[in-house]
Amino acid sequence: MNLRSLTGIKPTGMPHIGNWLGAIKPALELTKTYDALYFIADYHALTITPAPEAMKNDTYSVAATWLALGLDPEKAVFYKQSDIPQVFELCWLLNCFTPKGFLNRAHGYKDKLAKNKELKKDPDEGINMGFYSYPVLMAADILLFSADVVPVGHDQKQHLEFARDFATRVNNFYQVDLFKLPEPRITENSQTVVGLDGRKMSKSYDNTIPLFCTEKQLKKITNRIITNSQDVEEAKDPDKSSVFLLHKIFLDDAQAEDVKKIYTAGGMGWGKAKSMLFETLNEQLKNPREEYNRLVADTVYLDEVLKKGAEKARAIAGPFLEKARKIIGVAS
Amino acid sequence: MNLRSLTGIKPTGMPHIGNWLGAIKPALELTKTYDALYFIADYHALTITPAPEAMKNDTYSVAATWLALGLDPEKAVFYKQSDIPQVFELCWLLNCFTPKGFLNRAHGYKDKLAKNKELKKDPDEGINMGFYSYPVLMAADILLFSADVVPVGHDQKQHLEFARDFATRVNNFYQVDLFKLPEPRITENSQTVVGLDGRKMSKSYDNTIPLFCTEKQLKKITNRIITNSQDVEEAKDPDKSSVFLLHKIFLDDAQAEDVKKIYTAGGMGWGKAKSMLFETLNEQLKNPREEYNRLVADTVYLDEVLKKGAEKARAIAGPFLEKARKIIGVAS
Repeated sequence: MNLRSLTGIKPTGMPHIGNWLGAIKPALELTKTYDALYFIADYHALTITPAPEAMKNDTYSVAATWLALGLDPEKAVFYKQSDIPQVFELCWLLNCFTPKGFLNRAHGYKDKLAKNKELKKDPDEGINMGFYSYPVLMAADILLFSADVVPVGHDQKQHLEFARDFATRVNNFYQVDLFKLPEPRITENSQTVVGLDGRKMSKSYDNTIPLFCTEKQLKKITNRIITNSQDVEEAKDPDKSSVFLLHKIFLDDAQAEDVKKIYTAGGMGWGKAKSMLFETLNEQLKNPREEYNRLVADTVYLDEVLKKGAEKARAIAGPFLEKARKIIGVAS
Repeated sequence: MNLRSLTGIKPTGMPHIGNWLGAIKPALELTKTYDALYFIADYHALTITPAPEAMKNDTYSVAATWLALGLDPEKAVFYKQSDIPQVFELCWLLNCFTPKGFLNRAHGYKDKLAKNKELKKDPDEGINMGFYSYPVLMAADILLFSADVVPVGHDQKQHLEFARDFATRVNNFYQVDLFKLPEPRITENSQTVVGLDGRKMSKSYDNTIPLFCTEKQLKKITNRIITNSQDVEEAKDPDKSSVFLLHKIFLDDAQAEDVKKIYTAGGMGWGKAKSMLFETLNEQLKNPREEYNRLVADTVYLDEVLKKGAEKARAIAGPFLEKARKIIGVAS
């Protein structure tokens, strides 16, 4: 039996190229070496109480995105968190073994406290219990499926430590070997993708290239990349150009060398450079984009895929929770 | 359709006479005028992480107790909280609408904070998330079944206010009429039962008469009731005697007058008074005690009763949660 990996996906709007290369692609790689589970964390998204239509649409959108980018629902288990009732029961069980002090020290919560302090507000202003106890739900997501590895960004490493701690507490208290301790697979060193303004591509900088915009929009957006003011005839330093740095991600070494030569030879205006980037990008995104558009319109199919995935996930979660229930003494 | 009442029962050891008269009896009265639901709150008990055997035994014990005292599982819905997975999913949903500040102000939590402060400990020392977020689970227990009335002691009135508040928040946010606002039915003025030492009968005073001890133990315990040191021949004031105050609870007015006369006539020693009390008590407890002993040994039957109850409860909880899931946008 292979080791098991588990990846949680928040349903939050259209991902950008940075998400794809930095998170989605490496996560999809896991299917090759692990029994991979991917779930759409819709009940995590509820902590920011989205409108119901947004919740629904974002869930479809994220499902279509991952499928379009290569998630194979036959090979991996792909499901919605909300289709696994066992997660929430386990979450309560873990609550009873979670020292409140742990959550007081969670990074996300501490950030909010600091902001409230800065604004001279009540420390817990605007903080709901979903946000506060989110690490417990995350631990339930992971421990329920006995995941061996969980890819996490640096910001979520602490949450994984929590999950390991809760698991250990329960195992020790009942003197059992119920929960497997998940290993973090830190993804912090994954490819950083430069944004339109030269900083790291990030929604918070508003400098992103969305994955599945139309060809026309893609053209427009690549044209917005900030460059220096060199004339056409001047030789350009590719390694200092956001256009090239973005471009080379999608080229093999030989191709990158060829493009570099065009930069350094002079005679190439920025319009041309952007146009070359656009062609490459569009070439790579064309198929997934079409696939995405096809899938996102076919909600019947998406429902079907996620339903089948949920059945597979519950086939793991059900017996596992039953084992837990027996151990704590609530099962008949 | 009748209004619906809901009563939660913590599985915590053998109840005493004070529990019976002050809580169990009035709760069982509800079956007459309401569609009554009674549930054993085993996942609430998990907040104090009992040993698994204790969890199991206490659950059987409390089930046998209520059945022995007259709970009719054909008329009422009688189930274990842990058999209703919908409770925990709804609990998470409510978490996302529960301001953390509310739970900071919950009485139980504030008491613990105060104790920790007194002992110069970390404010959250010894507090787990189950204990801290217990009012949210309680709200889920209630709101899931659209309870009209919930009998609560004065100490839990605040929790019911919370439940009403969470319900209102969700209803308002989604502009729906999903949750019914439960009315508290305060039981604080119910019969106070005097304990062996003259104070209110309470486990924390260690002055209780257990409901289902053996006849021999009952005899021994009634003999421990504290009296004054009047001689046999002296006339005694029944209204100042714990023995009589306990006794009269189980007598009708005419019988009470007769016993009073024996007290005031003189010539009755305390041994005799206690013996009269024992006879009355034993007479009343004999049948339920036998029934309790029979039931608590028949765990197959208890499992069956609770299983059937859970089926009835889930027939309410399932469709209700599905409605909630549609409203928030996680259902397909």
